[in-house]
Amino acid sequence: MSFFRSRWVDRPAHVTELEPAALPAGFRAAGVHAGIKPAGEGGAAGALDVGLLVSDRDETVSAVRFCDNALVGAPVAVTGAARTDALRAVLANSGNSNVADGDRGLETARASQAAAAAALGIDADRVGLASTGVIGRELPRAALLAGAESCAAGLGADAAAFCEAILTTDKGPKRACLEVALPSGRTVRLAGQAKGAGMISPRFATMFCFVETDAALDHATLDLLTGVCVKRSFDRISVDGQLSTSDTVVAFANGAAGVEVAAESADELALGEAMDALLRQLALELVADGEGTTRVGRVRVRGAAEVVEPVARAVADSPLVKSALLGADPNFGRILQSVGQALGAGTPFVVDLAIEGIQVASAGTVLDLDAETWRTLERAVESPEVDIDLSLPGEGGETEVFFSDLTHEYVTINSEYST
Amino acid sequence: MSFFRSRWVDRPAHVTELEPAALPAGFRAAGVHAGIKPAGEGGAAGALDVGLLVSDRDETVSAVRFCDNALVGAPVAVTGAARTDALRAVLANSGNSNVADGDRGLETARASQAAAAAALGIDADRVGLASTGVIGRELPRAALLAGAESCAAGLGADAAAFCEAILTTDKGPKRACLEVALPSGRTVRLAGQAKGAGMISPRFATMFCFVETDAALDHATLDLLTGVCVKRSFDRISVDGQLSTSDTVVAFANGAAGVEVAAESADELALGEAMDALLRQLALELVADGEGTTRVGRVRVRGAAEVVEPVARAVADSPLVKSALLGADPNFGRILQSVGQALGAGTPFVVDLAIEGIQVASAGTVLDLDAETWRTLERAVESPEVDIDLSLPGEGGETEVFFSDLTHEYVTINSEYST
Repeated sequence: MSFFRSRWVDRPAHVTELEPAALPAGFRAAGVHAGIKPAGEGGAAGALDVGLLVSDRDETVSAVRFCDNALVGAPVAVTGAARTDALRAVLANSGNSNVADGDRGLETARASQAAAAAALGIDADRVGLASTGVIGRELPRAALLAGAESCAAGLGADAAAFCEAILTTDKGPKRACLEVALPSGRTVRLAGQAKGAGMISPRFATMFCFVETDAALDHATLDLLTGVCVKRSFDRISVDGQLSTSDTVVAFANGAAGVEVAAESADELALGEAMDALLRQLALELVADGEGTTRVGRVRVRGAAEVVEPVARAVADSPLVKSALLGADPNFGRILQSVGQALGAGTPFVVDLAIEGIQVASAGTVLDLDAETWRTLERAVESPEVDIDLSLPGEGGETEVFFSDLTHEYVTINSEYST
Repeated sequence: MSFFRSRWVDRPAHVTELEPAALPAGFRAAGVHAGIKPAGEGGAAGALDVGLLVSDRDETVSAVRFCDNALVGAPVAVTGAARTDALRAVLANSGNSNVADGDRGLETARASQAAAAAALGIDADRVGLASTGVIGRELPRAALLAGAESCAAGLGADAAAFCEAILTTDKGPKRACLEVALPSGRTVRLAGQAKGAGMISPRFATMFCFVETDAALDHATLDLLTGVCVKRSFDRISVDGQLSTSDTVVAFANGAAGVEVAAESADELALGEAMDALLRQLALELVADGEGTTRVGRVRVRGAAEVVEPVARAVADSPLVKSALLGADPNFGRILQSVGQALGAGTPFVVDLAIEGIQVASAGTVLDLDAETWRTLERAVESPEVDIDLSLPGEGGETEVFFSDLTHEYVTINSEYST
């Protein structure tokens, strides 16, 4: 099956899918069980919990994005203070997010950065950190340092173990490696590895995404591409409306393919298209693998610029809309209610609503659908991806949010997955 | 068992509980099955779905409050245009909320208002309306009019059938009748009937509350008391963060007891205390009977005036915090994460957190609890009502929100309860 499974993301024509855990030239990765997650039952090896991703080239440039929670983890703070335009490695762990642990947490983060740098023979300020898992517990420092060293000693050409090591409640790894044919006739690789299932929302949430290319880009160009693609992907998803404390996107370009991609060139555009499709599909994988997700909705809103975002978020995060999505119930009433909540009292309610292309409300009044249209609508909302389109008065605004349904499994996971 | 079941509401010393469905002097009520909800199985009578509450005295004054959704039902619009300071009756129905049905919905609302008024022999603009149930479907006009007439013909001295007729997914009726001993030595009655289980939030949601007293108050005094008490009760609860389209509070004072309660008198204060306790307990009953609720939390926030409300709402409406409440999990990490989300990037995270009186975080850093304290905390959060206290920098702000846990039953109800 193609990586581009969503109806909402097409594989660009100039992109070929490679082995999904492969990496571009000049990148290596590893993942180990270091003892941050519990050991397996009956003495079996525990789940992988420390991963390391490295670019072998000193010329490597990077771009980073973090969540905008007032409470951020020590790894986010330490990475933010590093050379974010020239990172060469990321040390990631799962099982403990190293958040709200004060000076002790900061010291653990800095010690792990130094340990990875020493093992790799690079400067500490070129190592980024990313931690995910429980909030507010001490991250076992010795285990993390040992894990960093054993990753550095066992780096390999693919990201399979690295992808495993960053998972928490994810059902499985999310990654792809693409070959991108540039208009200039040259070819580069572009790969991405992501994680995230719960605490996923507003500006991209408990999620990591690491992106590598062996093209040569300057930092400003990589940063621009990363910013644009994140805005169209991880910024536009919600599992539960909860903004994490540890979200991290790091993109690397190391030039190992010997292909320079200049700013504002046709090649940059083509690489950008590939990166856009890669990140959008990875973001959709996060939603589709949201804790318990059975169905994904997309709400698109057109109207005045200042209202489209709050309206889209209100629909995407309504537990009533999300429960109806689970039940394959074309419950337009709950969609309209959540739109009205976002607009607030006194705003004229002149709203058009279509579900799966079938108009169900016009200017705020629900239409009388005939029985056959109603049956068509009921069948349409049984599909794994459901479209909701809203038009409001005003111009200049258009946005979309991809969201999961609210399921029994979400409640089970989050009432039993403990501190 | 006392009506004042919550640990957060004490019965005022000057209040005596009467038969809960009783009404103050000069009020009558009725409830019938009119065919808006489906008929019972095997030819059994269907659930009650139309109710009428009436004050027999022309002197009656009233006060009303509605939700602030941009999309409001036709009954809210029609009631808002009536004599809201001098209503004498409310016609309520469940099973269909008469929302987003355009002119047809407005005509049905006006016709039902006129039918109730004619049957009661009063002016139409003294009849309020309240509808709850499915949004965006036609409310069967003939059934509602017939229900209004049969209620008017069968009015009785208690509100038992009326309370049944306003329920939707509620597990049972919420009502109380209190005898209030005033400082002047006189006695009045105060009663309230409420409904609501889902779509409950911000400024009081799919909820009705009808309040009656046989004291004589002028409109301004009744309005002030109603406003203050609603702000401290229905404004402070959340089941699912969803603001309804049809929330309605109507308070009546008819003077039938022959006891005048003057503005700013000791009697007004005593009546206000009783009304405050009545509405707070009714509001807590809504949360405790929230769709699937097993446990209720109260989050109290102190700090700068502009942050306490968004922080309290963020905690109360976080599906992660609500799932942890279900699991009796003292998950301070999720509470801190939601506080950080509300505060936003760049705000210093200097937050103190106590759960059930046990401090677990100080100035944004989680404390190392010893094993015994941890066990005490784990036992404490198993109680049916759990206290969460947050202190933020700044002064002048203090608020509280009562909220339900997020349960499998909520998901079941809302994925299977259809349009």
